[in-house]
Amino acid sequence: MAKLKRSERIAALVKLLADRPGHLWSLSQFAERFATAKSTISDDLSLVKAVLDQEGLGTIRTYPGVAGGVTYEPRVTEAAAWQLAEELAAQLRDPQRILPGGFVYMTDLLFSPTWAERLGALFATRFRGEEPDLVATVETKGIPLGLMTARALGRPLVLLRRDSRVTEGPSVSITYVSGSSQRIATMSVPRRAVPQGARVLLVDDFMKGGGTARGMMDLMREVGARVAGLGVMIATAEPARKLVEDYFAVAVLEGVDTVRRQVRVRPSLGR
Amino acid sequence: MAKLKRSERIAALVKLLADRPGHLWSLSQFAERFATAKSTISDDLSLVKAVLDQEGLGTIRTYPGVAGGVTYEPRVTEAAAWQLAEELAAQLRDPQRILPGGFVYMTDLLFSPTWAERLGALFATRFRGEEPDLVATVETKGIPLGLMTARALGRPLVLLRRDSRVTEGPSVSITYVSGSSQRIATMSVPRRAVPQGARVLLVDDFMKGGGTARGMMDLMREVGARVAGLGVMIATAEPARKLVEDYFAVAVLEGVDTVRRQVRVRPSLGR
Repeated sequence: MAKLKRSERIAALVKLLADRPGHLWSLSQFAERFATAKSTISDDLSLVKAVLDQEGLGTIRTYPGVAGGVTYEPRVTEAAAWQLAEELAAQLRDPQRILPGGFVYMTDLLFSPTWAERLGALFATRFRGEEPDLVATVETKGIPLGLMTARALGRPLVLLRRDSRVTEGPSVSITYVSGSSQRIATMSVPRRAVPQGARVLLVDDFMKGGGTARGMMDLMREVGARVAGLGVMIATAEPARKLVEDYFAVAVLEGVDTVRRQVRVRPSLGR
Repeated sequence: MAKLKRSERIAALVKLLADRPGHLWSLSQFAERFATAKSTISDDLSLVKAVLDQEGLGTIRTYPGVAGGVTYEPRVTEAAAWQLAEELAAQLRDPQRILPGGFVYMTDLLFSPTWAERLGALFATRFRGEEPDLVATVETKGIPLGLMTARALGRPLVLLRRDSRVTEGPSVSITYVSGSSQRIATMSVPRRAVPQGARVLLVDDFMKGGGTARGMMDLMREVGARVAGLGVMIATAEPARKLVEDYFAVAVLEGVDTVRRQVRVRPSLGR
């Protein structure tokens, strides 16, 4: 394989880094792959870091020492985060999304790879400092969001299920009260999926009363894990008092007027 | 913002392209963003294409004409595809995966962003020529795989559900026979999720009798869509005669010996 010129090497480097956010690469790996000196790779990475930072396209973090190396971290700037929240709110205001009963259709956004990826990068940026070992979500509609958050952090996703399955082995279950409907429900996780003491970032698509979120937290305590944070795409304004206090919502649904066909939603980036 | 040097511009270009597979970028967009001539961008893109092709990191496709531009396409080489299938088989052979009843635990692989992304790129490479408009999967465990396939193709993911929900609006349902258990089950899709005549690529994690796959196909016909292909991560060797004939499996599960604690699985890249 012909030795690459600098701009070619940088193209390949950026591609490798971007494909595996959170993955720790050693300089030797790159030096070997591109048949060049580690000092050259180090210079390339400085250039890449500078341009990604400047263009708001994420960053490169360097870990010093023998076990060290570099990782690419998606990072959403404050300005880009607000723009994303605004765009999301604008999408949700479309009156065609109003369903009978005052529900809002959002499945298309939740299952769009592009939206899931943008929101996942936002959650990763917001919660990276909490150093989560895992991301967890409850089936079904939070899965794309959870997966993309996990991808952006370079961590696995754990799925909490509404029931336990023979294909998942020994599992731990809890019952919880679904906040809005006051219905008793079950939530379970395979025992092998969450190591003792793991720090778990919880992600979900929608929060109203907070019952499901409370259940996720209780289940994490049951398996000896710690909650590193809770991020949701949309929280409702009412009830203001939810079963969980500390959460991050990208937007807040203030109300749906089925007669005037209006969805009132505002960007939030907080509670 | 300072004007970028060539290697800096290429770093940013590759990052933008890699973040949105399948997205059509016009040269003008890049020229504007980097305050440079379209001919310069065009030269940059030729260099990027050459190095991605050479390094097996995907490719750049150029669409000529007024509505033209370039897209980045993940592409898995034949050699990399076999390596992936071998690695997957090796993972599944781990005797610790054997569960009571001869089931094999694979949830960790299915919900790993890295595995989902690699498999998604493989499905995208295999089925890109069929020009799918959408990717569809059935809840729950196929979702990460479906999402990453959709991402690699730059297309939306549509979720087929085991029941229909008030939050999804008018939907179309079918009943089907779950092949292995001979149980009657329901599968539904929101009417607005699949446009008439759409070409849909079906993706699932596991196939035994093919009943679920058959159901997905029947549901697609019911909404006036066409099936562009069917990709599964694992198919079982038995029954050899399944309810669908034409599918692509990454690996084949030949049997599980719960006494000798052996999982027999082979790479396939076909039926």
